[in-house]
Formats: sequence, C-alpha cells, structure tokens
Amino acid sequence: MKNKMKVAVMNGIGKMGFIEKEVPQPKANEVLVKLEYVGICGSDLHYYETGRIGDYIVEPPFVLGHEPGGVVFGVGEEVKHLRVGDKVALEPGKTCGHCEFCKTGRYNLCQEVIFFATPPVDGVFQEYVCHEADLCFKLPENVSTIEGSLIEPLAVGFHAAIQGQAQAGQTAVVMGAGCIGLVTMMALKAMGVSNVYVVDIMEKRLEKALELGATGVINSKEADPVEMIMKLTDGKGCDLAIETAGAEITTIQCIHMAKKGTNVVLVGYSKTGEMTLPMSLVLDKELTFKTVFRYRHIYPMAIEAVANGKVNLKGIVTDEFTLDEVQKAMDYSVNNKSDIVKAVIKI
Amino acid sequence: MKNKMKVAVMNGIGKMGFIEKEVPQPKANEVLVKLEYVGICGSDLHYYETGRIGDYIVEPPFVLGHEPGGVVFGVGEEVKHLRVGDKVALEPGKTCGHCEFCKTGRYNLCQEVIFFATPPVDGVFQEYVCHEADLCFKLPENVSTIEGSLIEPLAVGFHAAIQGQAQAGQTAVVMGAGCIGLVTMMALKAMGVSNVYVVDIMEKRLEKALELGATGVINSKEADPVEMIMKLTDGKGCDLAIETAGAEITTIQCIHMAKKGTNVVLVGYSKTGEMTLPMSLVLDKELTFKTVFRYRHIYPMAIEAVANGKVNLKGIVTDEFTLDEVQKAMDYSVNNKSDIVKAVIKI
Amino acid sequence: MKNKMKVAVMNGIGKMGFIEKEVPQPKANEVLVKLEYVGICGSDLHYYETGRIGDYIVEPPFVLGHEPGGVVFGVGEEVKHLRVGDKVALEPGKTCGHCEFCKTGRYNLCQEVIFFATPPVDGVFQEYVCHEADLCFKLPENVSTIEGSLIEPLAVGFHAAIQGQAQAGQTAVVMGAGCIGLVTMMALKAMGVSNVYVVDIMEKRLEKALELGATGVINSKEADPVEMIMKLTDGKGCDLAIETAGAEITTIQCIHMAKKGTNVVLVGYSKTGEMTLPMSLVLDKELTFKTVFRYRHIYPMAIEAVANGKVNLKGIVTDEFTLDEVQKAMDYSVNNKSDIVKAVIKI
Amino acid sequence: MKNKMKVAVMNGIGKMGFIEKEVPQPKANEVLVKLEYVGICGSDLHYYETGRIGDYIVEPPFVLGHEPGGVVFGVGEEVKHLRVGDKVALEPGKTCGHCEFCKTGRYNLCQEVIFFATPPVDGVFQEYVCHEADLCFKLPENVSTIEGSLIEPLAVGFHAAIQGQAQAGQTAVVMGAGCIGLVTMMALKAMGVSNVYVVDIMEKRLEKALELGATGVINSKEADPVEMIMKLTDGKGCDLAIETAGAEITTIQCIHMAKKGTNVVLVGYSKTGEMTLPMSLVLDKELTFKTVFRYRHIYPMAIEAVANGKVNLKGIVTDEFTLDEVQKAMDYSVNNKSDIVKAVIKI
Repeated sequence: MKNKMKVAVMNGIGKMGFIEKEVPQPKANEVLVKLEYVGICGSDLHYYETGRIGDYIVEPPFVLGHEPGGVVFGVGEEVKHLRVGDKVALEPGKTCGHCEFCKTGRYNLCQEVIFFATPPVDGVFQEYVCHEADLCFKLPENVSTIEGSLIEPLAVGFHAAIQGQAQAGQTAVVMGAGCIGLVTMMALKAMGVSNVYVVDIMEKRLEKALELGATGVINSKEADPVEMIMKLTDGKGCDLAIETAGAEITTIQCIHMAKKGTNVVLVGYSKTGEMTLPMSLVLDKELTFKTVFRYRHIYPMAIEAVANGKVNLKGIVTDEFTLDEVQKAMDYSVNNKSDIVKAVIKI
Repeated sequence: MKNKMKVAVMNGIGKMGFIEKEVPQPKANEVLVKLEYVGICGSDLHYYETGRIGDYIVEPPFVLGHEPGGVVFGVGEEVKHLRVGDKVALEPGKTCGHCEFCKTGRYNLCQEVIFFATPPVDGVFQEYVCHEADLCFKLPENVSTIEGSLIEPLAVGFHAAIQGQAQAGQTAVVMGAGCIGLVTMMALKAMGVSNVYVVDIMEKRLEKALELGATGVINSKEADPVEMIMKLTDGKGCDLAIETAGAEITTIQCIHMAKKGTNVVLVGYSKTGEMTLPMSLVLDKELTFKTVFRYRHIYPMAIEAVANGKVNLKGIVTDEFTLDEVQKAMDYSVNNKSDIVKAVIKI
Repeated sequence: MKNKMKVAVMNGIGKMGFIEKEVPQPKANEVLVKLEYVGICGSDLHYYETGRIGDYIVEPPFVLGHEPGGVVFGVGEEVKHLRVGDKVALEPGKTCGHCEFCKTGRYNLCQEVIFFATPPVDGVFQEYVCHEADLCFKLPENVSTIEGSLIEPLAVGFHAAIQGQAQAGQTAVVMGAGCIGLVTMMALKAMGVSNVYVVDIMEKRLEKALELGATGVINSKEADPVEMIMKLTDGKGCDLAIETAGAEITTIQCIHMAKKGTNVVLVGYSKTGEMTLPMSLVLDKELTFKTVFRYRHIYPMAIEAVANGKVNLKGIVTDEFTLDEVQKAMDYSVNNKSDIVKAVIKI
Repeated sequence: MKNKMKVAVMNGIGKMGFIEKEVPQPKANEVLVKLEYVGICGSDLHYYETGRIGDYIVEPPFVLGHEPGGVVFGVGEEVKHLRVGDKVALEPGKTCGHCEFCKTGRYNLCQEVIFFATPPVDGVFQEYVCHEADLCFKLPENVSTIEGSLIEPLAVGFHAAIQGQAQAGQTAVVMGAGCIGLVTMMALKAMGVSNVYVVDIMEKRLEKALELGATGVINSKEADPVEMIMKLTDGKGCDLAIETAGAEITTIQCIHMAKKGTNVVLVGYSKTGEMTLPMSLVLDKELTFKTVFRYRHIYPMAIEAVANGKVNLKGIVTDEFTLDEVQKAMDYSVNNKSDIVKAVIKI
C-alpha cells in the first residue's frame, strides 16, 4: 500500500484542484476505507458556487463530498463486524452519543455532530478515508459500491417516508422529481404505499420517475396537480404529501391536496428561507407538518431495500466522472442542473 | 313543565332578539336538557359582528351558543347512563359514525358533523335543548353547571396539549392569554408539565394567568419572549410551544423558542388566513407543526380534571349575564375583548 | 327477482340443513347483496363441532358464515357510494358508533357489536343479505368476489402486522402456516417487511407459504426454529414475531427468538385459554406483547393490496364447495384440517 | 483532600467488610463525586443473600450499591455543565453509544452497558466515585442528595408510567406497595393520572401509599381487588394496570381488572421466572403487555418532578444507616423486608 493519496480540493468559488495527503491510519474503533464512488450532492454544488451555506463558510483548500461508498482496506483492533475487503456505505455524521438528542434516538439533531464536507470538516473527494467502524455499513454481495455511495440520499428519502408515517394502502404525492424526490418515491413504494404520484415541471425527470416505479406523474406546467390529485382520490385528497422541491407554490399545493388529518412532510429548503402559507386552511384540515433534517438510524433498512430489489438505486445515476475530472464534474453539474438527476465521482 | 321556551336569536349583524319555540321532546337516544349556563365564544362574536365565518353564513333568525351546561329534564327510552336531575356538559358536535374519520377515532374531522351554532345548525342560547345522550356527559357532584358549560373550551386546551404530546418534566410556552390560552395552560399543568410560561401583551390577562397557575408570564411589550425563554431554559429552548393568539409574530416566536425536534401546536386562526414563516429554520430544527380543530373524545378527561381540582375552570369567568341581557352581553363582549376572558349567559 | 332465498342452517352439532327465507329489503342506509362466495372460518367449524365458543352458544337453526363477497343487488335511498352491480366485500361487524371504543377508533372492541355468525346473530351461508352500506367495500375491477370473501381473514393479517408495527427493512417470523399465518405473512410483505420466515410442522403448508412469497420456511419438526432464526439474524433475533398457531410452545419460541425491545404479536387462541410463559425473560428483553381481536378500519388497505398484486389472496383457497354441498363442506373441513388452508362456499 | 477512601465490600454471602482504595482521578469527561447517600436496592439484597442474580455472579470482594447521590468534588477538563460543589444524582449505567439500541434511544437495552453493582462491575458503597459527567445530573437547590440517591428507583417508576402511556384523566392501578410500587404510584400522579389505586397485602405499606398520595388502597387479603376496581370504575375496568409485585396472582388480577384495549405494564420479576396466565382473555380484551427494564433518559424529568413538589421522594425512606453500619444495614434489610420501604446508607 502506498503512503500518499490524491485529494480533490475546492480552492475557491468555482475552482477545484488536487493535493496529496498521507493515507490515514485507522484508530482502534475505525476502519480505513478505499473509496470507490462518491456522489455529488446539491450542497456540494452550493458550496462550490457560493462558498457557503448559512453560517458554514468554506476555508480553502476544502474537501467536498459526503456520499461515499468503498471497500474496507484496514481495520482498527477493536472492530469486530468488518473485515478487509468488505464493501461498505459510510454514514457521514459522527455524533456525540451523550446529549439529549443522542440519548433519545434523534442523533441527527446532535449539536456536536462532525459531518463530512460541512465546514470546517473535510469531505471525501479523495482516495481513502478513516471512519468510525459503527458508521460503516457492510453491503451485501448483490449491492455495489456505487449503490453504497447513494445510500446517503436514499436515507433522506426513507426518513421523509417514515416522518410521514407512510403505510400500505395509502396514496402519496411527492412534489419534485429531483434526486431526493425520486428516492423518496422509491422509499414510499418500498414501505408498501400503494400509489405514489410524482409532480414536477420537467418532462425528463417525470419520465425518470415513471421508469423508477411511480404510479403516475403530473407535469404541473400542463395540469393543476391539486385538481389532478383530487380527481385521482375521488375528491378525498391524498393520504400523505411530501415536498422536496423547496418552493412555496408546491408547499401550498401540498396543503390543498392533502386529506384532512394527514401529514405534509417538508424536505426541500426554499431559497429565501421563508414561505407565505395558508395556515388557516392547515388548521381547518388539522394537518401536521413534519420536517426532515438528514436521517437517523436508517442505513440498515435502506441497504436492505436495495438488496431486496425494492429500490432501483442505480437507476438515479445519470452522470459519472473520474476523480481527475472533478473540475469538469462540478462545472457540468452546476450548468446542467435540470438534466442531471445524480452525478457520481468514480475514484 | 311548560310547553314553550324562550330562545335568543340573532336577527342580523349586531341585533339580538327573542322568539318562542316549542320545548322539544327527546328521541329514544336523546335527553332533554334544561340549560343553566352557556358560554360566549369568540366564534359567536364573529358571527354577531360579521354574519359569517368563511363559508358559514348566518341566515337570521339564528341561534348562537355552543358551550352549554345544564340539568337533565327528560330522558329517551333507550338512554341508560343518565337520569332526570343529572348535571351535564354537552359536547356540541354530532358526527356520522361511519366515515373514515369517525371510524379511526378522529371524529372531529367528520364532514357530516352537525355542530351547535354553526350555520345552518342552531345553537343553544335558549332554555331547553334535546341532544344525543352519548354527547351529554354527567358532571360529578363537585362540578357545577357553569363549569359544565366551560368544558367545551377546556376540551380545546386539552386537545392542544395532547396534540403537542405534553409530558411531565417539560417546559412549555403558551402564546396568548385569552380564554383558549388560559385553558391550554391549565390543561398542560394538569398533564404534569413542569413549567408553563404564558406570553401576552395585556398585563391584566397575564395576571390572570399567574392567578390560575402559570409558572411565569412574559409581557412581550416589555421583553422579547424568545430571549426570555432561551434564558429560562439555559439556551436549549422550550419542549413545546402552543400558539393561541393567531398572530404571525407569535407563530414566528414559537419557531425561534422551540428546542430542536419539538412540537409547535397551532390553535389560533390568523385574521388573513395566511402567515409568512421562516420555514427553513423549521426544517433545520426538524420541528413538527401540529394543529387543533376542535377536539375528540376529551370531555371525560376534562371533567375529571375539574373534579379533581387540577383545573380552576370557574377562575376564567370574568362576566356573567342573564338570557334577557343577551344583547348587552354580546355588545359588551364585542366592545371589551381585551378585558373579558370569558363571559357566560345564565339561563 | 325472486322473493325467497335458500339459507343453509346448522340444525345441531354436525348437522347442516336448509330453510327458505324472504329476501330482505334494504333500509335507507343499507344495500342488498347477492352473495357469491363465503369463506369457511375456523370459528364456523368450532360452532359446528361443539355448538359454542365460550359464552356464545348456538340455538338451532343458526346460520354460519361471516366472510362474504358478493354483488350489490339493491340500494337503500341514502346510499351514495354503491350502485347495483358493484362487487363488494362485507365487513361483518356493525358497531354502536357511540361508545368509548367506537369514538377512539377502536371499534373492534365495541361491546354492542352485531357480528355475522356470532350467536344469536345469524351469518351469511345464504343467497342474499342486507348490510349497512358503509360496511360494504367496493372491489376494483381486477378483484373478484372470491377474493372479496377473503378480505375478512386478510384484515386479521393486516391488523396483526400493524399491531406489530411492521416496517420496511425488518426480519419477521410468523408461527403457524394456516390461513391466518399465511395472510399475516402476505400482509407483512405488503407492508415492506424485508424477510418473513414462516414456521410450521406440516410440510404442505410450508410449501404453500413459500409459493405465496415467504422468504423462507422452517419445519420445527426438523430444526429448532429459535436456533434457525438466531442464525439467520446473526444472533440478534428477529424484529417482530407473530404467533398464529395458538400453542404455548410457539409462543415461548417467539419470546426466545425476538430481538430485545421488539413486539411479539399474539393472534392464535390456545385450546385451554392458559399459557405458562417465561415472563422474566420477557422483562429482561423488554418485549411488548401486542394482541389481535378481529381488526379495525382495514378493509380499504387490504382491498388495495390485493388490487395492486401485493397479496395473492386466491392462492390460499384450497377447496371450493357449492351451497348445496354445505354439509359435505363442513364435514370435509372438520376432517381434513391439516390439508385445507382455506375452503369457500360458492353460492 | 485525602488519597484513600473507605469502601464497603461483600466478602461472601451474608458477609460485609471494608477495604481501603485510592481515591480515583476523573478522566477528561468525568467528575469525581463525594457520595453522601446510597440507597439499598432489592438486587443488592439478592446478591447479598444468594451471591448471584441469573448469570451475574459475585466474585468477592465486591462492592454493592447503585443508587448514589453526592456532591461534585473534582471535574475533568472537558466537563462543562458541572462544578465542584454541585449536588448530583448519578445514573448508574454507562452505555456504548454505538449499537442499534443506543442509536434508537433505547439505551437501556445496550448489551455493552457497564452498570454499578452488576458483577463484575463494582458499585458505590464507598466514599468517592468517578463517573461520566453526562450521567451525573445536577440537583436544584431544593433537592437534597438523599433524594438524589432515590432518583434511580423513581426513574423505574416513571419508565413504567411512560411505558403504560399514562395520561391525565385515567384511573390506574398499581399492584404492590413496595418501593417500586410507591414510586410508580407517585410517577403516575405526577403525570396527571386522576386516580391511582394501590393494592398490597400489608397494611403498613398501604398506609404509606395513602400518605404519599394514592387515591385509594386495597388490601387484597380483605377484599378482591378485581371486584373492587370494577366497582370503582362502574364495571369498565381500569385504564392502566402496573404490576410491581412480581407474583402470578397479581398479574392475573391485572388482566382481569384492565379495561379492554389497555396496557398492562409488568415491572416485578417472579421468583421462578415463569407465570401461567389466561392468555385467551388477554386476546379477547386486546390488551397490550408492556415491560420495564431499568429506564432511559428519565433522570431529568424525575428530578424536575421532585423539585416541583410533585413527588415526595423523602417520604419513602424508612431506614437510614451509616457506611460503618453496612453489615447491620444489610442484615436488617434482609430480615425486615415487609417493614422496610427503603433503606439508605449515609456516607
């Protein structure tokens, strides 16, 4: 094994480059993973384009990437459940284990979390990484490391479905057919939801949704999604609406199309941070708004769903680049947002 | 028993009057109740001032009033659990029992509901009423019919507390110290919540809140309630925030003062029906918005809480009028909204 | 339409016969259903063999049968959602709508329930029946009335799965591969449970389980199911165990094979009514016992699951008889319990 | 500060003694606590009398005691929320933070737990102890360290009440008026449960229950508790039954007195480990059995309840001994089980 590894870094807004680092050594409770695929997430692009998200500010050189899949290359002495050669998906956030949130099973809210590619913590657009073994989930034989890298967004989709209390027999609607919209649709189907309709304004994405298993799609440029859903549900409204587009209009549509007493799950962030919503209608219908911040303890079920063939995770990948092409990958992703569902870096 | 009864009616906006009606006869599953007290609710005042709430439009002569307490005066042949002379609180909404909502225990969402004083269904500002026996809840000896008439708003408070998953040990905040704010505060205390802070801008109401058991009060004209709650919770935020004021600003304050991962319960209706809210913050904190539309199956626990001395329901009554004074009662209530917590009609 | 209909009656223990009755007329809120298939349930056989179940004693002539599927033949004037010619599945229990259980959505516990074929209420081994329209669920085009008649046992299976909080990603075990065991297995699969293992001692039934979609089966005559499940779950135990065999030994096995903190769902009744169980182990593992008494508000999701092809309900039918063959049907069912999964009467 | 501390040890069955140990130094994330009170628990007595509980076998010299209250004497460099002089209650179990149970908020089921006085881990019948700071909960001014030492059993009571989904308005029954029965009763009251009846066979304990706030008590030597509860609930049965006596008969009584559809919570361990129970009745009533193994994340709410005066924790202490009297304390406790509610060691 070589001692040095190649690391792609963001040197400034719109500028990628490379540095060399020592290959790290795993601590007792860690494994060293040789990365094979890392997905490019919207937040990576946001840092790349603007240098920040809220209070998190990139200090170059900074390593992006938090959706890693790879193979175990070294194992700390206390690690029992992994061996060299195991394929793994890496959950990117290490939490404190001691705060109120960790102790009550809501570790995604831990304030002390150390999360890949969230400044000042570096990400994983690089050849190797050491990570806490308990956050490295072994992939079954029939799940590849490219799928492993996509368990991260799929976990968001499952968390959305769980927050919404998705159940067999329901009719659900997903607003937005981007990466998160599509994995949410697939998570809902995997949880037994009978009908999942996907709404977007880009025909290409809606075709993808149908290809991946949506019950039906609605192009809201061509038809009013609220009217359509009301027709499809005999005027009752849907049992669950999940908003992944981050738009005010789609959130309002969710409120209108949801059956009384149901859950509306908000996943997408709006650009301004604010939305003007018909709150009296929300009360009249006694709706519940559930929200999604990352995920908690979902990797095992997400991996299982892929292994069982319930989720076609490879199907969301539209573009693949090598690590050497990282500049091109980022630029292409920024410039073709509406064409790309999911781009990955092959390392 | 006489055959005729006096009924107060709304003859137009701002105009009350009286008519005489036959005293009704109870059907097999009904009881005839001699009404003793009927509370005046904000919705009664709204109909009185504007003639409508949303699509519900008053056609005069219309009977207002949906918070009744009284004594059983006659009993249908199938009724087993009530006898003449029993004091009762009347739940005002009769539901279909057959729809999806009724069958799943969420009968407050039943579309076929027949609810006192919701046009075109008359209310109970009158001497007698026949009502389904299963909606008439017997009051224990130590609970009076004036308290019986106030079980209705208290049920809203308990429903808010239950929707918010109130629990022993929590610190909760109630925005608004009107009638619903105060009963919500008392419901929270009855459910074991350790600390309940009440926020309002009227000193008189805040004094009332303290008198009725609030842990502390905040006059938001004098201090920023978000800052205050953060101080009181060592920077963590409250475990539960319940909005009863119906204002955008208080709803935004709830979002800011709530601890990550907690429930914000919306009870108050805004005037315009819309609110502009910092939804990205709601997602960042993974908050849940629960809402309240009336209540379901709460009368027994509310009556029990009053009987046990956990809720001082009489304490919210600030004004009492006779049925003959109904015009004065309505006018006074409209003109002194900030002084009145709860006015009742003694019949 | 003729005025008289044929009704199969139980004239005594082991004795079936026929009588003629007037075809009933639907009340305003009822429909008249021409029955096409009625399943034979274990409780029908129990009444037939012993004349009673607990305090419910058959007074001949008594009509058995509570799993009906048919076609709407007449419609009461208030009925809106059904028309003549609609295929329907009939939920057999009419509840009061007013008691604590009905009001809280747990109507299966209603004490006033009127349930087909539970003495003294007659069942539906007959040509026509009038039933409350809200208990008649329309079948989609691709669901047949024979499947309609089996929605009843499937509802038990779904209720068991829901009581157990079945979820995508789990590994569940079903003890017993009789009719209820098999529909429970299929309900679990429809709810997204990843792996469902079925345990029985009859090879024929286990083959049926595999044919209908079980992940794997265990013949407990040949292998210890606790050991097997421990192996299959890497020593962790299953996420959910559902007991449908009604035996003490299988209940004890559930306790041993369940992962700490999980649900054990009890569906099967034991012969003696009592079981001796290792309760200290139940505490050590902090298990929860959930139980199943019939079902509540499950027909819509069960029908949807069949229509969507998630549940192969026809697959459980092993034997079919005509109404004229009812004596033979009952005798054969009693004498071949281990060979029959489900017998139905075609009417 | 001295360097040596006195430690009481169990030298064999029925034999206590003393050794001297170094006062330990707190690690970075630990505090050093000067112990003031340690409660004597039933499990301490069980080890003392028999040398083992199940597979946990005492290897002398062994330190008993896991209910500690004390004052912070030293603070590790990373500890932020505690200072020297703070009064604290110590949660005795340190968990791994990484397993499925820890990650899902059910850390009481963690297999890697290190728990005071559970062999081979020593307990705290000694002058000082170092403990993870996050497991040391600061006591408010008005809560003493003797109360701090009793937060541990109170946490069991709250966990039982929470497992049972205790709620305002309910009528609950607690079987057994020993220490755990009494703290459970107080926890139920603190959570707003309206009526809590306590059942035992020792009049002295029942008097204690009344003194500490029970709504009523039943001596089951004098009256049938099932009949009594049925009378007190108008034949409906109680909303929640909690078994703390560990007897088969009291568990059966819980099943008989519980209202349909309710929770029976099992806390007490039976001597033989087995119970013969009327399981068919459990199914007929669709009861749920919840169980209690220690507690999780309950110290804050338990401390709050004591600080707020909702739980009279001092009231359960019947006997106090010094550390020097530890032999006498243990012997007296073993020989007077029925007279003692709670004995504590003052250190």
